[in-house]
Amino acid sequence: MSESFTPASPLLRPFSPPPRLLMGPGPITVDPRVLRAMSVQLVGQYDPAMTACMNETMALYRGVFSTANQWTFLVDGTSRAGIEAVLVSMLEPGDKVLVPVFGRFGHLLTEIAQRCGAQVHTIEKEWGEVFTPDEIEDAIKKFKPKVLAVVQGDTSTTMLQPLESLGEICQRHDVLFYSDATASIGGNEFLTDKWQLDAVSVGLQKCLCGPSGSAPVTLSDKAVATIKKRKHIEAGIRTDQHQAGQGQIIRSNYFDLGMIMDYWGEERLNHHTEATTMLYGARECARILLEEGKEQVITRHQQHGDAMAKGLSAMDLTLFGDQAHKMTNVVGVYIPQGVDGEAIRQSMLLDFGIEIGTSFGPLHGKIWRIGTMGYNARKDAVLQTLVALESVLTRAGHKLQANAGADTALNFYGQL
Amino acid sequence: MSESFTPASPLLRPFSPPPRLLMGPGPITVDPRVLRAMSVQLVGQYDPAMTACMNETMALYRGVFSTANQWTFLVDGTSRAGIEAVLVSMLEPGDKVLVPVFGRFGHLLTEIAQRCGAQVHTIEKEWGEVFTPDEIEDAIKKFKPKVLAVVQGDTSTTMLQPLESLGEICQRHDVLFYSDATASIGGNEFLTDKWQLDAVSVGLQKCLCGPSGSAPVTLSDKAVATIKKRKHIEAGIRTDQHQAGQGQIIRSNYFDLGMIMDYWGEERLNHHTEATTMLYGARECARILLEEGKEQVITRHQQHGDAMAKGLSAMDLTLFGDQAHKMTNVVGVYIPQGVDGEAIRQSMLLDFGIEIGTSFGPLHGKIWRIGTMGYNARKDAVLQTLVALESVLTRAGHKLQANAGADTALNFYGQL
Repeated sequence: MSESFTPASPLLRPFSPPPRLLMGPGPITVDPRVLRAMSVQLVGQYDPAMTACMNETMALYRGVFSTANQWTFLVDGTSRAGIEAVLVSMLEPGDKVLVPVFGRFGHLLTEIAQRCGAQVHTIEKEWGEVFTPDEIEDAIKKFKPKVLAVVQGDTSTTMLQPLESLGEICQRHDVLFYSDATASIGGNEFLTDKWQLDAVSVGLQKCLCGPSGSAPVTLSDKAVATIKKRKHIEAGIRTDQHQAGQGQIIRSNYFDLGMIMDYWGEERLNHHTEATTMLYGARECARILLEEGKEQVITRHQQHGDAMAKGLSAMDLTLFGDQAHKMTNVVGVYIPQGVDGEAIRQSMLLDFGIEIGTSFGPLHGKIWRIGTMGYNARKDAVLQTLVALESVLTRAGHKLQANAGADTALNFYGQL
Repeated sequence: MSESFTPASPLLRPFSPPPRLLMGPGPITVDPRVLRAMSVQLVGQYDPAMTACMNETMALYRGVFSTANQWTFLVDGTSRAGIEAVLVSMLEPGDKVLVPVFGRFGHLLTEIAQRCGAQVHTIEKEWGEVFTPDEIEDAIKKFKPKVLAVVQGDTSTTMLQPLESLGEICQRHDVLFYSDATASIGGNEFLTDKWQLDAVSVGLQKCLCGPSGSAPVTLSDKAVATIKKRKHIEAGIRTDQHQAGQGQIIRSNYFDLGMIMDYWGEERLNHHTEATTMLYGARECARILLEEGKEQVITRHQQHGDAMAKGLSAMDLTLFGDQAHKMTNVVGVYIPQGVDGEAIRQSMLLDFGIEIGTSFGPLHGKIWRIGTMGYNARKDAVLQTLVALESVLTRAGHKLQANAGADTALNFYGQL
C-alpha cells in the first residue's frame, strides 16, 4: 500500500532549499542566531536546566511585552494558536465579545470567538483604515462586551490600530482588553501595562526574527482570575485534593491556559510536552530584541520601512492605505496598471530569489505587500529589493525613472 | 514596570544546557541529524521549494504510517495537538465515543473528547494491563459509538494495546477507528491501512528521534468525508463560490482539519503559517526512520529494550506490568523497598547526567520508567544507564550482585 523507500528514493534526499530573501509580510528570513540556538540538544521536561530556561524565557518576554505580568509564557503552536488559546480560555459560551475588524485578522478573531461559542459583535472599517477610540468606545457602550479583541497590526492591510487609549476605555466599562500583536510586535511600540492590556498574543515570524511555531502570550491578573475560575485538572494526574473551578470547563485541553499556567508555574503539572526546540528559538528571539534595545529596534524598522516606502514611491508606484497609521514593518503598494502582479512576484522569486507578498480578500490582485522586518529590516535587503523590482517592472513595461528607487532610498539613508 | 535588560544581565546569556542522556519515557535525546535539518534557513509559505517540502513530508509520513492515505500531514503543535485536532474535527457535540482506558493517555483522550462536547463512554483496565478485542467489541455493541479512540502505547504504564483486530470490529459496527501512537510509533509495528484505521496521530519526541512540537496525522477517506461535511472557509479569505458544509462548524479554528487540508492540499488556502523549522525536523525524522528501514528500527528497539529489561531484572529489580504487552521502547521497574525513588532519579540526573522517568497517578512513587527509544535505542546508552543505576542504587543500600546489570545485558547482546 505505502510507497516503498529505497536508498535511491528522491524522497530520502536532505531538504536543501534555495537561498531566499523573504521581503513579504512574514514569515521572513530567520536571524541565523535563532537557528543556531535551536540546534542545541534537548534536556528533559523537568530538568532544572529546562525549568530555568522556561523561567528565563518568561522574564525575557516580560521585557518584550513591557509588562510585569507574572503569566507571560509560550503557547506551543503558531501565532493563531496563541489567539485561540486566549479566546477559548477567556470566553465562555454566550459571552459577548467586540471585534473591530479592519482586515483579515479581525475576521480571524471573529471566527475563532464564534467557534468558542461567544456572541461576537463586529464593527468594520474599509481595508486601509483604522478606528478612532471614540468609535470603539461607542460600540462598547452599545454592545457591553466582556472582551474587546483587536489586532494591533493587520498584515492584510499593513495598518496599525492605535491601542494606547483603549485600555482606559475598557477599564471604564469593565471590559477585558485583548490584542494580538503578531504582525507588529518588535517593530512598533507595544506597552502592555501602560496601555492596560489584559491579554496579548504574538508570534515569532515577523519582527522577532524567528520561525513560526511558538506563540508568546501575557495575561494580566484580571485575565488570570477569569481563566482560573474555569480550572480543571486532568483525571490522569489529578490528586484527591483537586478542587475543580466554578466556571464552565474550557472547551479545549490543548489551549486551556489554566493548565498551561500550572505547567509553566511552580506546580509544574504535566500538560503537553514543551516544544523544547521552539522554546530555545523563542528565547533567542527575545534576547536579540532586548540586546539591541526595544527603542532601537523600533527605530530601525521605522527607518528601513521609510526607505522602502520612499523608494517604491520614487518608482512611480502608489502606496496603499492611510500612511499615518501604517505599521513600520510592511508597506502595501498598488500593482500598476497593465502589469501582471503574480508574474512580477514570480520573477522576483524565481529569477532574483526575493519574495514579496500577495494579498487577500478585497485587496487580492490589487496590491503587493513588502516587508522590512526583523532580520531583514536592513539597508542591503531594502536596496536589493528595490533594484530587483525595478528590473522586473521595467521588463514588464512599467515606466519609471532609471535607478530612482535605490537613489531615493540611498539619499534617505544619507540624511539619517 | 518591566525588568530592565543591560548587556550584563544574566537573562541575556545564550542558553547552554548541560549534556544529558535522556533515558526516560520521552522526550529523548534528539538525533543530531534532526537538529541539523532544523538549522536550515526558511523559505516562504508558498515558495515552490516549501510546497515541495510539504508534499515530500506527506509522502514520507505515508511510509511512517504504512498507509496510502492522501491526507497525511502535520498539525503544528505537540502530540496532544494532534489528538485534539482529530477529535474536535471528527466529533460533533453529542456524538458518542468509546475510549478504552489503560493509563493516563486514555484519560487524556476522554477529557479531550468531553471538551469537544462528545458523550464519552469508557472501559477501564488496571494500569499495567491491556484489553482483549472481545472486551472492546462488547463495549462497542453496548454503547454504539461513532468513534473508537484508543492509544496504542500508553507511556504512563509502558503497555502496548494490540490494535490489529480492532479495525475489522470497527468496520463491522460502522465505527470510526482512531488511535494515538505517539509513544509507540517507530519502535513498534503500526500498520494504518492493514489494521483499517481511520485516523492516527503521533508526535516526534519518542522513537522518531525529534523534539516535540509537530504532530503528524493520517486520515482515511471515511474520516476525511466525516470532517469535510463540516467544512467552512474563513471570512477573510472566502470567495463568493464558497459553499459551507452541512455539519456543525468545528469548534476550533486552529484544529479544523478541513481547513488544514485546504492548506496542505492543492488549494493552498492560507490557514496558520506553517511552522517551517518543525516541518524540516519532522521531515528528517521520517527520513531517518525510512532510511534505516521500519522493520530494522523495530528490531533495534526490541533488542535494546530487551537488553535494558534483562539488565534491570539482573539487578534484583522487578519489572512492572504485563511483559507480553509491553512497548519495546520503555520499561517500568518497581522502586525497591527502602529506596527513595526521587533521590535516585536526582543522583542519576545531577551526578551522572542520565535522566530516567518518574510516574503519574496510581503508579506515582511506585515505579520508574526507563526508555530505550529513538536515537537512544543504542548499546552504549543502555550500558551507561545500567552501570550508573547500579552505582546509585548500591550507595542507597539496595542489594545487588556487582556488575550484574551490565554483564547480563552484554551477554544478551553477545547472543544476538
